[in-house]
Amino acid sequence: MRMKAAVMHTPRQPLVIEDVELDAPHAGEVLVKMVASGVCHSDVHNYTGDLPVPPPPIVLGHEGGGIVQEVGPGVTRLKPGDKVVMTFLPSCGRCRWCHTGQPNLCDLGAGISTGKMLDGTNRMRRADGTPLNSWSFISTYAEYSVAPEASLVKVPEWTPLEKACLFGCGFTTGYGAVTNAIRMKPGETITIVGCGGLGLAAIQGAAASDAGKIIAVDVHEEKLEMAKKMGATHAVRNRHKVDEAVKEIMDITWGLGTDYSGDFVGFDQCNETIDLAFKAVRKGGTMLLVGVAPLMQQTMPVNPALMTLFQKTIKGLLFGSAQFQVDIPRYIDLMHAGKIDMDSMVTHEYKLTDINTCFANLLAGNKVARQVIRFP
Amino acid sequence: MRMKAAVMHTPRQPLVIEDVELDAPHAGEVLVKMVASGVCHSDVHNYTGDLPVPPPPIVLGHEGGGIVQEVGPGVTRLKPGDKVVMTFLPSCGRCRWCHTGQPNLCDLGAGISTGKMLDGTNRMRRADGTPLNSWSFISTYAEYSVAPEASLVKVPEWTPLEKACLFGCGFTTGYGAVTNAIRMKPGETITIVGCGGLGLAAIQGAAASDAGKIIAVDVHEEKLEMAKKMGATHAVRNRHKVDEAVKEIMDITWGLGTDYSGDFVGFDQCNETIDLAFKAVRKGGTMLLVGVAPLMQQTMPVNPALMTLFQKTIKGLLFGSAQFQVDIPRYIDLMHAGKIDMDSMVTHEYKLTDINTCFANLLAGNKVARQVIRFP
Repeated sequence: MRMKAAVMHTPRQPLVIEDVELDAPHAGEVLVKMVASGVCHSDVHNYTGDLPVPPPPIVLGHEGGGIVQEVGPGVTRLKPGDKVVMTFLPSCGRCRWCHTGQPNLCDLGAGISTGKMLDGTNRMRRADGTPLNSWSFISTYAEYSVAPEASLVKVPEWTPLEKACLFGCGFTTGYGAVTNAIRMKPGETITIVGCGGLGLAAIQGAAASDAGKIIAVDVHEEKLEMAKKMGATHAVRNRHKVDEAVKEIMDITWGLGTDYSGDFVGFDQCNETIDLAFKAVRKGGTMLLVGVAPLMQQTMPVNPALMTLFQKTIKGLLFGSAQFQVDIPRYIDLMHAGKIDMDSMVTHEYKLTDINTCFANLLAGNKVARQVIRFP
Repeated sequence: MRMKAAVMHTPRQPLVIEDVELDAPHAGEVLVKMVASGVCHSDVHNYTGDLPVPPPPIVLGHEGGGIVQEVGPGVTRLKPGDKVVMTFLPSCGRCRWCHTGQPNLCDLGAGISTGKMLDGTNRMRRADGTPLNSWSFISTYAEYSVAPEASLVKVPEWTPLEKACLFGCGFTTGYGAVTNAIRMKPGETITIVGCGGLGLAAIQGAAASDAGKIIAVDVHEEKLEMAKKMGATHAVRNRHKVDEAVKEIMDITWGLGTDYSGDFVGFDQCNETIDLAFKAVRKGGTMLLVGVAPLMQQTMPVNPALMTLFQKTIKGLLFGSAQFQVDIPRYIDLMHAGKIDMDSMVTHEYKLTDINTCFANLLAGNKVARQVIRFP
């Protein structure tokens, strides 16, 4: 079939909305009509070339929601008409990770860097026949998506996908980190470094855990305002002087540091944000490493002697350690009950033709929490 | 009183056995007649200048066993004649860490770098009146020690202190790391990087946990032989080529890596040993950071993107996360039952006058597991 999709041809050049041919679903795959897609910063990293895989030409977008149109051979869990949230990682249900309650580590996930579907072939091509790479097997910046059943979570028919689409990556990564990977006691404290989509979701997770002090850290005043709206009890402006920010955190915590901390930024700023999160966490505390650093970075700005002498733990976390077939429906219930605030998370809605504006907003850093593309 | 002690006057110069004046115990302190002292590599780091605190002149030695001779004001738990193991960290029993079952993090521990006793004064001086610094408040390379009650663990009168003295630091740090800080399921796997005192104790801890594969890694063939004696199921020689050693570990584990790993070396080799331990642990696994790196080292040789993408955890551990007032008597029972093998741990016994030989042996790296100094 033919559809409109946003194609990235060259890093740092505007994406082009063009006609794209989409094949019918193969075995284990599902054709989804897109309703909404989140715009996650990881796409921007691919766009800028900081995350060089998969290569262009590619259709980006890796958190979405839509309606099942057609199912390929062997698909048993879904049928046309079902509403689905589309996740950036698939889970096969059979590997050692899926089998042990860690679907976020499913071996299929490694394939997202190839740009191919799970069977090693492409599903999209340009009008001239050039194959187009997929991203995370779901390529949500398009009117339709052929996606693996393994990447789809069936959700109630009343689900507002223009909010729930964010559960496919960013929100779950942040909220899950705080609510799955650690178990905060009521009144315990946490420092959240970075108040983008991940950090703001993490703040909601900390608030849901009845954290005592939730210290939000960001370089942008606007982000700190959003953080307070999500439940941050304290805001610390990082003026790119780590020690000054850490001193403020120590003042807030009576010189102790927080019980937990997390870097929710990663990438090119990771040397600063990891350093800050590590220094903010108290003796015996746990730091979460959530934002993904550049693949080529070979060291962490952490003093290993202080890791042992202060007995600190650093936990790297992928997709918020989520068991997403269960967690995403749970989040939808929490949202429905008013306990997860997605209205404040989604600060902007756009059309697919606005995709380049969305990327520019993310690159500016201070303009948006999370942007959602809605399809007509 | 006057006694013989091994005094370090200048880094890298031989320690001198000389007459030292020892004051009577102050409030909360205890006079102990030494029976045995372990010779831990940390002392060598002070001797070489790699661990520059406390400064000389100093009496080193920080794991020991002895008999209580006299107690100072306020001491209630001990009386003359009691047998004690002397630990390198004290625990006050009242701070937030002691109160929450983490005596290894007790705030008093920070004082060990000062060289003074807990009240800020010295207890030893040379014949000419020059004050001598203490190490870990217990300075065990001497015939007597005035030590805080907070650093002493009362043990049964039948305890062989020439073995149990090692529970005051090294053995507990290694064995405790594996048995306190993680909970291995029977058959799970672990890579132990470094087969010195810590690593060999860790191997015993892994064996006691019914680990399936215990992969010992060291640069010295002699150490690997000792490791097998302690329970290692596989030995990998590290020829300072990390990737080759990691490949061997992958071959042993069917390409997966081990469920757990640990760096039991630290110090000047930490860039190699941390790198190796991090790469050896599987997706979703936990690496223990036990050997202490140089204080000045500001980075860890760990790719932070791989920490998140492979969801690895790194746990810094101090003194094996031990609750030593309970754990050390437990170890003594295990030793008595033949389930902890201290006979193989203590490869050499020496007299105090041999202390420079002991240091030379440790610097050679391949000669000894653990050395013990016995006092007549």
